[in-house]
Amino acid sequence: MPRATTLEQVAARAGVSRQTVSNALNAPGKVRPDTLRRVREVIDELGYRPDTKARGLRTRSSGLIGYCVAERRADSVNTFMDRYLRALTAEVERTGRHVLLFTAAPGAEGLPVYEDLLARSAVDAFVLSDTQVGDPRHEWLAERGVPFASFGRTGSGTGDQPGPWVDVDGADGTAQAVRHLLEQGHSRIGFLGLPEGNRVGDDRAEGWRRACAEAGVEASGDLVVRCADEHRDRGEAAELLLDPGGGPTALVAANDALALGAYAALAARGLRVGTDVAVTGFDDSPTASVLVPGLTSLRQPVERVARRMVELLDEPDAAGGELLSPELVVRGSSDPVHSAGGQL
Amino acid sequence: MPRATTLEQVAARAGVSRQTVSNALNAPGKVRPDTLRRVREVIDELGYRPDTKARGLRTRSSGLIGYCVAERRADSVNTFMDRYLRALTAEVERTGRHVLLFTAAPGAEGLPVYEDLLARSAVDAFVLSDTQVGDPRHEWLAERGVPFASFGRTGSGTGDQPGPWVDVDGADGTAQAVRHLLEQGHSRIGFLGLPEGNRVGDDRAEGWRRACAEAGVEASGDLVVRCADEHRDRGEAAELLLDPGGGPTALVAANDALALGAYAALAARGLRVGTDVAVTGFDDSPTASVLVPGLTSLRQPVERVARRMVELLDEPDAAGGELLSPELVVRGSSDPVHSAGGQL
Repeated sequence: MPRATTLEQVAARAGVSRQTVSNALNAPGKVRPDTLRRVREVIDELGYRPDTKARGLRTRSSGLIGYCVAERRADSVNTFMDRYLRALTAEVERTGRHVLLFTAAPGAEGLPVYEDLLARSAVDAFVLSDTQVGDPRHEWLAERGVPFASFGRTGSGTGDQPGPWVDVDGADGTAQAVRHLLEQGHSRIGFLGLPEGNRVGDDRAEGWRRACAEAGVEASGDLVVRCADEHRDRGEAAELLLDPGGGPTALVAANDALALGAYAALAARGLRVGTDVAVTGFDDSPTASVLVPGLTSLRQPVERVARRMVELLDEPDAAGGELLSPELVVRGSSDPVHSAGGQL
Repeated sequence: MPRATTLEQVAARAGVSRQTVSNALNAPGKVRPDTLRRVREVIDELGYRPDTKARGLRTRSSGLIGYCVAERRADSVNTFMDRYLRALTAEVERTGRHVLLFTAAPGAEGLPVYEDLLARSAVDAFVLSDTQVGDPRHEWLAERGVPFASFGRTGSGTGDQPGPWVDVDGADGTAQAVRHLLEQGHSRIGFLGLPEGNRVGDDRAEGWRRACAEAGVEASGDLVVRCADEHRDRGEAAELLLDPGGGPTALVAANDALALGAYAALAARGLRVGTDVAVTGFDDSPTASVLVPGLTSLRQPVERVARRMVELLDEPDAAGGELLSPELVVRGSSDPVHSAGGQL
């Protein structure tokens, strides 16, 4: 069994004092960002694990960050929360703490669970996910002075949300997809959207509209179909856009399931995805990489979200939000040069 | 905020003594199975949460069960571990404890992390997942008398594995798929398999072979193609089986990605999945339900696995293993009567 790395070794390698390493772990707000980055890199490199038991005695903290695992629809392809939770676990460990999982009902009904965890000192802070519009948890925790950070926004505004948050910029994502398709020579780019009134869906529609307008290509109502997020409608939505005369040569879909509807509609007409009509999705679900051809999609930057969430927990007076851009993953559905599909 | 449920209320509702409720929580092995079930149902019904802080003082336990979140291939469609972790969290909560997440390298390289968690009394027990052939964790934990249960087997045998385990019966799964296809009138059923020598893959091939033999239908080498689990080979594997003259009318695939290869190969020949050739997959990935037509697949019984894992943690001298059957989810790919696809 290798001997454990000590705080002294971390300090020596990073060229800082023991106190600075200690601050980087326990009070990151006191350390300059570049120093903090260097110390954390050394902690990663050496695999240093702080003695959290001793820390618990000193500070009476549990050394645990609470995370609620939400119920998901069994057929949801939005599996990036699995990747996110792993990234979050690793980031929390970098600060010498661990993630404690719990279940709770959404909304106000779940608040007694948060109260119970705090009453028992089972956790020091919360990392909130599955944030909903009007989510009551943020205000409830802020009123009690409990440290937390939120993945997602409680409303459409950005200024009035209690506590710090990180979110992914959906409009930026669909705008990236449009610019990629323009580069591929497309000039009639349709949009397959979610029903209006859904914040995530509206954001993604807006990015498509804006990027088309900036490029001077059409973004009229004829090129948009919004549908319920349900299979039959998905296929029909894509069909409505596919008019062999003046229909779009590329389709930007607001998520990967809608893009799958487009695959089915194109196949039914004998059109090939990627060569006859380009298609892009959103979320880069595992489905995107196993489809034939592979589906170009936008990958949620869950590793960066996780890192910022943990940093925000330790920043005193952290407030306001940060929008991170998703990453366009190009595959055969929008660029036939790319290999036809992925792996399991 | 509703007043918390007490142990007394649970005892009264379940018609048992306070001691029995206490035993159900802390020493389930002392309680008769039917009583244990009743007490747990009442705990669920009333939302009772034991005071684990007091329990920690009494028994010097952390009240936490360690769970290692493994690195996954970014494009893995095997997302049932996400569902499993949620089920496990809920089951562990039913016993008044919580799940503590951590990361560790696979194999012996990760053992210092387990040692560190035990040395700090950060966890009382481990629930092992991502079990590999020759996994060193089981013996290491057994030697130290640390309670644990394993999802998965460390070898092909079942008798020599240290500690209790639960696994999913792959052979039973493909046999279910074959019997379903026989009922649909198919009598030439091909198998798309993983390369030989992979325990999971060999199990699934054996189930197909055995069910065909039992029904008296052919299960010859002409009907089997095994391939690397990689896209190009997947498509080619399906192609090899599809001989319009005497080729199979149904294909059982060892996983959903292989089934996707069959979808692509059939489409390339102008054949329709479900009506011209039936296809089944394995694992019931989210992909299965969003494909058009939906892919018949075998669902991992993660809720039952999670429940047994937590029960095994609390059974003194638990050893040996249990194989649970997966559940066949029938969709349009093997039964055109079913709706064509699922939802996002």
